[in-house]
Amino acid sequence: MTQIPQDHPRYKSLITRENTVEGVEKGITSIQGLIAQGRGEAFDYLIGECSTDSAKQAERVAVSYLFIAENPVISVNGNTAALVPDELVVLSDITGSSLEVNLFHRSKKRIDRIVEHLESHGARNVLGVKGDSTLDLSHDRRLVDHDGIYGADVVLVPLEDGDRCETLSKMNKVVIAIDLNPLSRTSRCANVTIIDNITRAFENMLQHADEMKSFTDDQFKDIIDNYDNNQVISSALHEIENRLKTLSKEFGKT
Amino acid sequence: MTQIPQDHPRYKSLITRENTVEGVEKGITSIQGLIAQGRGEAFDYLIGECSTDSAKQAERVAVSYLFIAENPVISVNGNTAALVPDELVVLSDITGSSLEVNLFHRSKKRIDRIVEHLESHGARNVLGVKGDSTLDLSHDRRLVDHDGIYGADVVLVPLEDGDRCETLSKMNKVVIAIDLNPLSRTSRCANVTIIDNITRAFENMLQHADEMKSFTDDQFKDIIDNYDNNQVISSALHEIENRLKTLSKEFGKT
Repeated sequence: MTQIPQDHPRYKSLITRENTVEGVEKGITSIQGLIAQGRGEAFDYLIGECSTDSAKQAERVAVSYLFIAENPVISVNGNTAALVPDELVVLSDITGSSLEVNLFHRSKKRIDRIVEHLESHGARNVLGVKGDSTLDLSHDRRLVDHDGIYGADVVLVPLEDGDRCETLSKMNKVVIAIDLNPLSRTSRCANVTIIDNITRAFENMLQHADEMKSFTDDQFKDIIDNYDNNQVISSALHEIENRLKTLSKEFGKT
Repeated sequence: MTQIPQDHPRYKSLITRENTVEGVEKGITSIQGLIAQGRGEAFDYLIGECSTDSAKQAERVAVSYLFIAENPVISVNGNTAALVPDELVVLSDITGSSLEVNLFHRSKKRIDRIVEHLESHGARNVLGVKGDSTLDLSHDRRLVDHDGIYGADVVLVPLEDGDRCETLSKMNKVVIAIDLNPLSRTSRCANVTIIDNITRAFENMLQHADEMKSFTDDQFKDIIDNYDNNQVISSALHEIENRLKTLSKEFGKT
């Protein structure tokens, strides 16, 4: 891995980039995953590279849904596995969610590598190898496990593509998305849209999960009922708008 | 190449992505080029994934400059070669511009591969192999051909990095940039800033070039004299701002 000095002002972002590149080298992340990473970086820059209050609120609601679900599943793709393997395992353990590998650029080899990678970080019973059920999609994201995503009532889809998100929604599942682009189809069709960097999102969700692990179902339902996802998306758009305004003023001065 | 179903709502964007990945596999595009591609995608989302009126105006002016220039050069990097090889050749033919390969991550092997790639798409006399002149820069972008970029009066620099753009400007060359980020240094220092996706930009420029090929120099000068680049940048920023405002209102209402 390229050496990044810890005092570099963009240390965290550069390390995330290096981890994604390492994911490609390990055969976990697809090469297309690097493009997704670049897109994320641009949006992260525009929201100011920090978790906004509304993102934190969405993260709290996401955790509530995972806790009260009967069969919650966290979908894992190559970027997610490369960036937050430990956090995936802990969140799945605390909330009783299954982990299921689901890939757009699917190959048996990549699925096996991701499963092994998650197991080396402590995961057990990782789903996604079977792919014994299908969603109504024309690409390989359609292959899901019957005991996993197919039958899930709540699905967390970090770094997702939009059409699967729509398909899952149509199946009346609660979809929680992590997507830095507030304009994406994923963001717009999810029930809970976490507009945050995936590494910060998992860090926050784990903190929430730890604080909320002894909450009652009524408490979770209260949190969920008081949530307005459109408001959260709208607020992220405002955030970007204001930042662009500030940046364009700064440029105007020079 | 991964199969992308033609009915995928983001087919065009995904194909562009696949072409960039193929560029990496062929040794034409650098791996860093993938992250840059992703950053571009993010800004393309924000301008609505279409050519705005002001982008089209900039594209028309760009073509006018190429037509009236004495020694116009189109600079080619790894992403450009992967994405618009045919269009590069046709634009160079119609406007009488030279093609010159110029790379940040320069290696003889990569330059040779890009030259071969362009030749396989019909290009002749591709410059950039010699690198017998230098610009005032600390990285490899400084190596240019004396008969090409060094002596050019107009340079089209698609997907550029900011410092070379500044250097070319200081040498009193007319710089035409294609950059989806209206806030970048490249965008701010170019004479003509095309804030558009490179594939759409080339498509539009070819159409303009075809319509304008029998224009007189006076007609080209008229088009150029009536052009205000700051206005175009400012309009792109407004475009993004308005798009974000409208969308955030829409979300607020539902």
